[in-house]
Amino acid sequence: MPETEFTEKLFEGDIRTIARAITKVENGTKGAAELMKAVFPKTGRATVIGVTGAPGAGKSSLVDKLALYYKNKGDRVGIICIDPSSPFSGGAILGDRIRMATLGLEKNVFIRSMATRGNLGGLSRATVDAVSILDAAGFDKVIVETVGVGQDEVEIVKAADVSIVVLVPGMGDDIQAIKAGIMEIGDVFVINKADREGVLRTQKELEALLSLAHRPDMWNPPIVRTVATENKGIEDLSAAIESYAGYHTADDEAVRTRKKAIARWRLLELLQEELLRRVLEKNGTNDEIDRLAGRMAEKSVDPYTAVETLLTDK
Amino acid sequence: MPETEFTEKLFEGDIRTIARAITKVENGTKGAAELMKAVFPKTGRATVIGVTGAPGAGKSSLVDKLALYYKNKGDRVGIICIDPSSPFSGGAILGDRIRMATLGLEKNVFIRSMATRGNLGGLSRATVDAVSILDAAGFDKVIVETVGVGQDEVEIVKAADVSIVVLVPGMGDDIQAIKAGIMEIGDVFVINKADREGVLRTQKELEALLSLAHRPDMWNPPIVRTVATENKGIEDLSAAIESYAGYHTADDEAVRTRKKAIARWRLLELLQEELLRRVLEKNGTNDEIDRLAGRMAEKSVDPYTAVETLLTDK
Repeated sequence: MPETEFTEKLFEGDIRTIARAITKVENGTKGAAELMKAVFPKTGRATVIGVTGAPGAGKSSLVDKLALYYKNKGDRVGIICIDPSSPFSGGAILGDRIRMATLGLEKNVFIRSMATRGNLGGLSRATVDAVSILDAAGFDKVIVETVGVGQDEVEIVKAADVSIVVLVPGMGDDIQAIKAGIMEIGDVFVINKADREGVLRTQKELEALLSLAHRPDMWNPPIVRTVATENKGIEDLSAAIESYAGYHTADDEAVRTRKKAIARWRLLELLQEELLRRVLEKNGTNDEIDRLAGRMAEKSVDPYTAVETLLTDK
Repeated sequence: MPETEFTEKLFEGDIRTIARAITKVENGTKGAAELMKAVFPKTGRATVIGVTGAPGAGKSSLVDKLALYYKNKGDRVGIICIDPSSPFSGGAILGDRIRMATLGLEKNVFIRSMATRGNLGGLSRATVDAVSILDAAGFDKVIVETVGVGQDEVEIVKAADVSIVVLVPGMGDDIQAIKAGIMEIGDVFVINKADREGVLRTQKELEALLSLAHRPDMWNPPIVRTVATENKGIEDLSAAIESYAGYHTADDEAVRTRKKAIARWRLLELLQEELLRRVLEKNGTNDEIDRLAGRMAEKSVDPYTAVETLLTDK
């Protein structure tokens, strides 16, 4: 298919074309750059919602119910799920299908798990590119959900328009450590499984932590209680998301600062990947890396000398 | 202090020198490379134990009790804690001090949180470098503990000699997703908080999942039940760790393959960081990145064109 026909079908929202486009950015092939150059100017219309939180907090159920809520209101909804476990288990594709079946296999809901971590890294870059693709393809809401909670995942969720942090009642002591870091990320907090014991205590603890935070934009993040499995609190959650989106006007200083920080992060991620690609593309580099890794494993060379050797030879 | 005096004190296990050395690799200064070249040949003696698992699983308590167990047996124990939340909260340093006080402020236990994520990324690289420093400084056991569970964290834990995955009874549905990916990582599994309801069910589920896995080394990962807060099961855990270490002899094909894969990952991480450093060091690059990020935020340039511009100008 010629490039222009491909992007035309993409901008019309054709599901198979979208899936192929995301595979392109996931693989990081040359065509991906050309595609993204066409996609980027068409972005900025969708509301991008990032969802993170501890495993076991019921993020997937919550995201599914929120997507269903938006769909029933007439929105087109895309879900990108960052799941580092899927390359091992092959479970992601099956999981996507099961979720698709629940959400309704149709034009207005698209779900995709991202997991590939190739030689070049680039999961963060591929994820934000996939979000841009759904945005350009006319989706009204794009939800980015993380399975893990690590530093890459936090960066990706921070790059959303609205970041949601999901907790559950009574998570024990470690939650204090998590909360401390996550406080700065959440624009909206959800206490899911709110029919469980300890919800009040978790809410009080969270309120206390939030009262200590000083956000540069003076926003006071709302706390929403949900029971996703029973579809409870989803409307409240959508209202909280909207209230944050409505709090900022596009030419707010805080919004401009945030957008620029996201752009800078995205630029550096891509720059790093491109630099590595250029080195790896040179003839013989892969063999040399293999040889040097072998010598490192035997402790006959240290990693720093190995990198110097690699870069001197090139 | 001259370089040789510094490394001498490091190899003698001087705590302040160790702390300064880790700060060096964390900051990624030029001196770090020279230091690591001296450190690397002295490594390979310590047993490196990676610990990961969901937040709320009680990893910190478990690690503290295991460290105490080793200390009481006469081992020197180092703990590296990867905590992406600490730069926000400043809580890591305080947390380290509290944990140090519990473990005993002395020469035989060292604890350090790693959190810095600078312009160059490099948390994974800094963490494995810190492990090498403790190894070279004569620590018998080095425990790497992750607060988050993301793709970087998984890579870091995989680079240990023995990887431990900590679960708790009754974590709900999401745990299935986590387990699927984590199965391939764990050499030893721990069900902590094993005095809670549902421990048998979690054990059965885990056994079923593990029976499906085909490890290239034919190892059958043991499952250990612990109640870390009551110091229960810690000896069993240390026995399980030892049994895995004893399962492999140094010239096992599986061990060689694993060591080479770790070396390759470590080489690529460092290469990527060094490539980015070289670009950022050039005069005017930071200003240009700033300018391009501003234009990206206004959507007047796409990230791919921005990276091309950056690399053409250099």
